[in-house]
Amino acid sequence: MKTNEGRFFEDYAVGQVIAHAVPRTVGAGERALYHALYPARHALYSADTFAQGCGLAASPLDDLIAFHTVFGKTVPDISLNAVANLGYAEGRFLQPVWPGDTLRSTSEVIGLKQNSNGKTGVVWVRTRGENQRGQAVLDYIRWVMVRKRDADAPAPETVVPELKPALAAEDLVVPAGLDFSTYDFTAAGEPHRGGDYAVGEIIDHVDGVTVEEAEHMMATRLWQNTAKVHFDATNREDGRRLIYGGHVISLARALSFNGLANAQMIAGINAGAHANPCFAGTTVRAWSEVLDKAETTAPGVGALRLRLVATGADHALGELRGEDGKYRPGILLDLDYWALLPV
Amino acid sequence: MKTNEGRFFEDYAVGQVIAHAVPRTVGAGERALYHALYPARHALYSADTFAQGCGLAASPLDDLIAFHTVFGKTVPDISLNAVANLGYAEGRFLQPVWPGDTLRSTSEVIGLKQNSNGKTGVVWVRTRGENQRGQAVLDYIRWVMVRKRDADAPAPETVVPELKPALAAEDLVVPAGLDFSTYDFTAAGEPHRGGDYAVGEIIDHVDGVTVEEAEHMMATRLWQNTAKVHFDATNREDGRRLIYGGHVISLARALSFNGLANAQMIAGINAGAHANPCFAGTTVRAWSEVLDKAETTAPGVGALRLRLVATGADHALGELRGEDGKYRPGILLDLDYWALLPV
Amino acid sequence: MKTNEGRFFEDYAVGQVIAHAVPRTVGAGERALYHALYPARHALYSADTFAQGCGLAASPLDDLIAFHTVFGKTVPDISLNAVANLGYAEGRFLQPVWPGDTLRSTSEVIGLKQNSNGKTGVVWVRTRGENQRGQAVLDYIRWVMVRKRDADAPAPETVVPELKPALAAEDLVVPAGLDFSTYDFTAAGEPHRGGDYAVGEIIDHVDGVTVEEAEHMMATRLWQNTAKVHFDATNREDGRRLIYGGHVISLARALSFNGLANAQMIAGINAGAHANPCFAGTTVRAWSEVLDKAETTAPGVGALRLRLVATGADHALGELRGEDGKYRPGILLDLDYWALLPV
Repeated sequence: MKTNEGRFFEDYAVGQVIAHAVPRTVGAGERALYHALYPARHALYSADTFAQGCGLAASPLDDLIAFHTVFGKTVPDISLNAVANLGYAEGRFLQPVWPGDTLRSTSEVIGLKQNSNGKTGVVWVRTRGENQRGQAVLDYIRWVMVRKRDADAPAPETVVPELKPALAAEDLVVPAGLDFSTYDFTAAGEPHRGGDYAVGEIIDHVDGVTVEEAEHMMATRLWQNTAKVHFDATNREDGRRLIYGGHVISLARALSFNGLANAQMIAGINAGAHANPCFAGTTVRAWSEVLDKAETTAPGVGALRLRLVATGADHALGELRGEDGKYRPGILLDLDYWALLPV
Repeated sequence: MKTNEGRFFEDYAVGQVIAHAVPRTVGAGERALYHALYPARHALYSADTFAQGCGLAASPLDDLIAFHTVFGKTVPDISLNAVANLGYAEGRFLQPVWPGDTLRSTSEVIGLKQNSNGKTGVVWVRTRGENQRGQAVLDYIRWVMVRKRDADAPAPETVVPELKPALAAEDLVVPAGLDFSTYDFTAAGEPHRGGDYAVGEIIDHVDGVTVEEAEHMMATRLWQNTAKVHFDATNREDGRRLIYGGHVISLARALSFNGLANAQMIAGINAGAHANPCFAGTTVRAWSEVLDKAETTAPGVGALRLRLVATGADHALGELRGEDGKYRPGILLDLDYWALLPV
Repeated sequence: MKTNEGRFFEDYAVGQVIAHAVPRTVGAGERALYHALYPARHALYSADTFAQGCGLAASPLDDLIAFHTVFGKTVPDISLNAVANLGYAEGRFLQPVWPGDTLRSTSEVIGLKQNSNGKTGVVWVRTRGENQRGQAVLDYIRWVMVRKRDADAPAPETVVPELKPALAAEDLVVPAGLDFSTYDFTAAGEPHRGGDYAVGEIIDHVDGVTVEEAEHMMATRLWQNTAKVHFDATNREDGRRLIYGGHVISLARALSFNGLANAQMIAGINAGAHANPCFAGTTVRAWSEVLDKAETTAPGVGALRLRLVATGADHALGELRGEDGKYRPGILLDLDYWALLPV
């Protein structure tokens, strides 16, 4: 067999380190495509002049370009046989990615738990993205449910890693040089500072985007994500292509500009659930809830912990779960993250 | 309210200057996407070598990339609540945009006229796009019909600006260094000089392009144009997404290569009407009429005033209006512009 | 007539040299779009670091970007009135294309043969692509069937060029500096060296991609290929847009990563047939057959001659032709090429 059939549950062992294939140089082209595929407008990622006014050398590539690229490399090794992408935790953005940087990914298996049905198990990995200088740009924990190759294979010792429910503000890494003390609110598009947001506040981002097959496939390929289910209409019985969950993250984050234009940079991902599948033809909208507020040691830079919710059919602000405690059918994404904004 | 609901008619005052948000750095990625989204082939925007042979340092970004980017920034402030985009006048391209340039836009309100129904009014603005060196790259007048927030709000004093029906050739700005005296007609693709075109001549550009939803949305997002009607299939009662008028301009201009390959640069926009809406599935064609000819002081550089017409269902050369004086239903665009070409 | 109606059979003469119009500068944007449009993952074209580890200055643009760009320029002169694209031979990649290079194309007519029906004829051309330094980056022979303008025009003298059935390994040009002696198999994604492949071996590339209209049109426009049939849904009686054959080549080549991840560079194209038309909605898959193996004089660099087959409806490994000797209806592409890989 010359082709990669992916790893099955019994192929993982706690402590195992997997160097994922195909490093990737990203630059001006990926940046333009990101703007074509998502209604992205956060000024720090739109204009060199704005980024320079915030103490950076130039406009970095969008944080989520880094995330999707690092994530995409892990798919052939981690989630090719995954039944479900269960969650994210402790995601930290450690270094901006600049045009011309080359990213590669490594994952360490940090947890394993066979399911009681004996056919599947849960694998926890800590994935780290690095640039060509060997600097970490991103790390995060992800756990997925993976099929066993052989249902009779013995169960491994159960190891369930202890995960922080959320990063503390002190865990966040503010990019070197970032300074919001002379922040240009007019150029950024909204006047709201950190102090203008209240914990518990809910913001309707108003706009909607109806998603097309060509768009989500182009995005997902751009991140070299190879999961068949996104590209091959013959793969599922219903003949539908499942949209990569990260596409919905980027759409929702871009839509959140309207109301959160100053939440410029993503500093951490506390948790995330792809609550329901998304398909082409869906009109995606978003709302956010302010979960927490914090300060940082960088000049003028504060942090906002936000719940970013993407909705499909049913856009009910603040309503996440039904009476049964499960996500409502219209919820596509529930993402808990930290953003940096002017205090 | 944290989100932008846009300005209503009573929010404008003559003399008001609006600095539009989110500057944008454009470069090699936007250039490639422009070529992927439109069948653009004018050699000056295709090849550094050709542009250098015309006296420029390198190939600038397509004029319409500059126009769409500058225009896109104005949407949240000018046309979010617009009922109709009524016209353009006195558009001048003042400076090429180079890869790496950062563009921002400012508009001054130069006219206001409440409609007799009391529910809407017309707003005239002069918009100026600037690069990161503070040089104007483009200015143009646009007028739109905007809803009133409150029908009982008093009408402002009527100010209707006097607009030139067309720019004179002397008003056109030829880019510094442009020299067509050693122009390479073989590389450009056609042998026709300015002298080969006659006023009144009509050129059928022959080719057609059937438009897809993914394409016009990617283009419109690339210019950070946020008008809901282009992206959200639930926005209109008929469930159709309206294609950004600028998408049709770029399509028609690109199609006009076939017959006008040497009309390399757009120097001015005299007038423009989006005569009928365009939707995905339409096969767009184009024809041009030569309206005027002029000389410039730059070596070998002449100017052609052209009417560029995009058609949908009904491609009848030279037939613009029906017996009632209104645009025929198959007309999508009627654009009056000046182009620079070798004499 | 200002517009190009294309050349007809009687417009060609053996020995005629046609300089094709519109040179094109390619770079980071084309590279990103290539990755968005095809599931391309060969590491040498994905990461500067990987290419540098193979002795190159940086990651060149994908070989097929060079091919499509050079090919696209020939369409207005060679195949605008073509009835069929009959074949390729003796294609050699002579020089990598780097971001910022400007490509132009020239074709020499090397054969002519009027068909017995008197209405069409076959034209053979040798096309050469050059960069801005005047270096050849690519040359290949193509032959097409072209309509006559006038069925009564006299037949030219028949000249049928002698074509090599395949390039010999000695005919291949290995890029200056290429060195696979310290090749990083982990980063490349697969462990298989040249020695691991056997002549006659067939590899199923497993993955499938369902093609969308927006994707193939964006790709084909990006190469400035103007053939109407790809863009205009009113052009054919069945209302379908024919997908550019080169789009299927790039799709199949990208899919072949899975099993041929180390077949990094295309060095030669021996033959190629677009066996059946491809339309949007088709799920394209691919398989390869190892036809030959060879060494080169570059350190660690071997060559594999491969048959790359793209399939649509019917993915039967190794089954190319039916009992009638014709391509099976599910075969889209049969491409015979040489690739460079670590020995």
